[in-house]
Amino acid sequence: MGQVTARRRAKHLTAGHVVTRPETLAVEEPLEIRVNGTPVTVTMRTPGSDIELTQGFLLTEGVIAGREDVLTVRYCGGRNGEGANTYNVLDATLAPGVNPPGLDVTRNFYTTSSCGVCGKASLEAVRLVSRFSPGHDPATVSAAALEAMPEQLRSAQKVFATTGGLHAAALFGVDGTMLAVREDIGRHNAVDKVIGWAVEQRRIPLGASVLLVSGRASFELTQKALMAGIPILAAVSAPSSLAVSLAEEFGITLVAFLREDSMNVYTRADRIT
Amino acid sequence: MGQVTARRRAKHLTAGHVVTRPETLAVEEPLEIRVNGTPVTVTMRTPGSDIELTQGFLLTEGVIAGREDVLTVRYCGGRNGEGANTYNVLDATLAPGVNPPGLDVTRNFYTTSSCGVCGKASLEAVRLVSRFSPGHDPATVSAAALEAMPEQLRSAQKVFATTGGLHAAALFGVDGTMLAVREDIGRHNAVDKVIGWAVEQRRIPLGASVLLVSGRASFELTQKALMAGIPILAAVSAPSSLAVSLAEEFGITLVAFLREDSMNVYTRADRIT
Repeated sequence: MGQVTARRRAKHLTAGHVVTRPETLAVEEPLEIRVNGTPVTVTMRTPGSDIELTQGFLLTEGVIAGREDVLTVRYCGGRNGEGANTYNVLDATLAPGVNPPGLDVTRNFYTTSSCGVCGKASLEAVRLVSRFSPGHDPATVSAAALEAMPEQLRSAQKVFATTGGLHAAALFGVDGTMLAVREDIGRHNAVDKVIGWAVEQRRIPLGASVLLVSGRASFELTQKALMAGIPILAAVSAPSSLAVSLAEEFGITLVAFLREDSMNVYTRADRIT
Repeated sequence: MGQVTARRRAKHLTAGHVVTRPETLAVEEPLEIRVNGTPVTVTMRTPGSDIELTQGFLLTEGVIAGREDVLTVRYCGGRNGEGANTYNVLDATLAPGVNPPGLDVTRNFYTTSSCGVCGKASLEAVRLVSRFSPGHDPATVSAAALEAMPEQLRSAQKVFATTGGLHAAALFGVDGTMLAVREDIGRHNAVDKVIGWAVEQRRIPLGASVLLVSGRASFELTQKALMAGIPILAAVSAPSSLAVSLAEEFGITLVAFLREDSMNVYTRADRIT
């Protein structure tokens, strides 16, 4: 199995001094995801929680609706020069009747609309594949519970603490309980891993939950929240224009610049008490 | 033409107070890149410098070697519901004899190796498409010049200052002169834009230059530096394991955690005086 961190000697320069010392790095390795034996995508990720990553990816791309749509996810192929398994290829076998994705799933979201490529078309394309309606979720969360979440996330970010190199995503109940946290070199992978955890736990759709991300809220991350049925998305950093539009369109509460004592609420502020 | 920022009302919560106020957001919109009329990729980007983004993308993906390989880059198609151009579709026409990319260029880098999907295979795949040898670049840069670069970058980040939502990339000469800076919602897009500027300026390969990124140094960003012939890559934040491996393999100087008074040098420290 791949490692999450690697040690590496580096020169540390400071005020005219040079020290050679070991540094801890976040590991980045490619993962090829196959569906029914056919390669679908390659993502650069930090090894670990690969089966969650695969199932989260398949859910947020609209291929599966939950754990029941997947028969198995197995490491396969990918022998290195010495014949050892690289653990960098996973094959998901879908349940009978579940359609595999088109060969280039990443483009489906953007180009299925007749009105051309634009933000509005992107929202329309997402509508075509979304299965849940988090907009109808009556859950509420207190501002105090939200404000406590970033510190809970930071405390759980073990690898970030040593490398400074990983994004993190966490799922919380609306009472403020942290359900799961995952780290990855890629922000979308961290979210797919934590959603994949929920797939494994058969908790999809993720009603009455908060998805917290350590960085910014983009269109893609908001889309992933929607695809998992999550009613509240919170980001430590800034949101994009299209993330706000998507959250508004689908009734997701979007919180950003979430700090210990303040936050901005862009959409559906009625869920925050 | 698309806008770079958008205004949006949000509720700002702090210590029991709620204020509704306008917030400035970084705009995120899809851009479809076509080559000779065939769609190649869709990227979520901040509008602006789209032609540079397209040419930088084509260069760093190994499709073109420089400006001379491109005849024209034009906005096309992409009418919205009211028949107006969305300026979200660009078509690049290549010079005669220049091969268009395979339909799924993003995968070529990772899966052309016979040894399966792994970090080493990724390095091998990059070797197959790289055209320049920044490892042989004799350029050096002073530690003082490097340490001054992040502040120069921050001063030039106009949109980040108002939105907190954009990544930035800049090119410097090894004397510390800033040549170009670009911002984008996507870190890889910011790098493609600034490299696309160099394509336009017919400065490829970018010898005796430093590429500075506002965030982390990943495999993908290191690959882009290599593809543009840049000998020195500097990041404000952490590097990944595979970024260090790639830099070492191709003789690129990789600096990370670059601060006003310190830095870590992972590879080819001999270029820093």
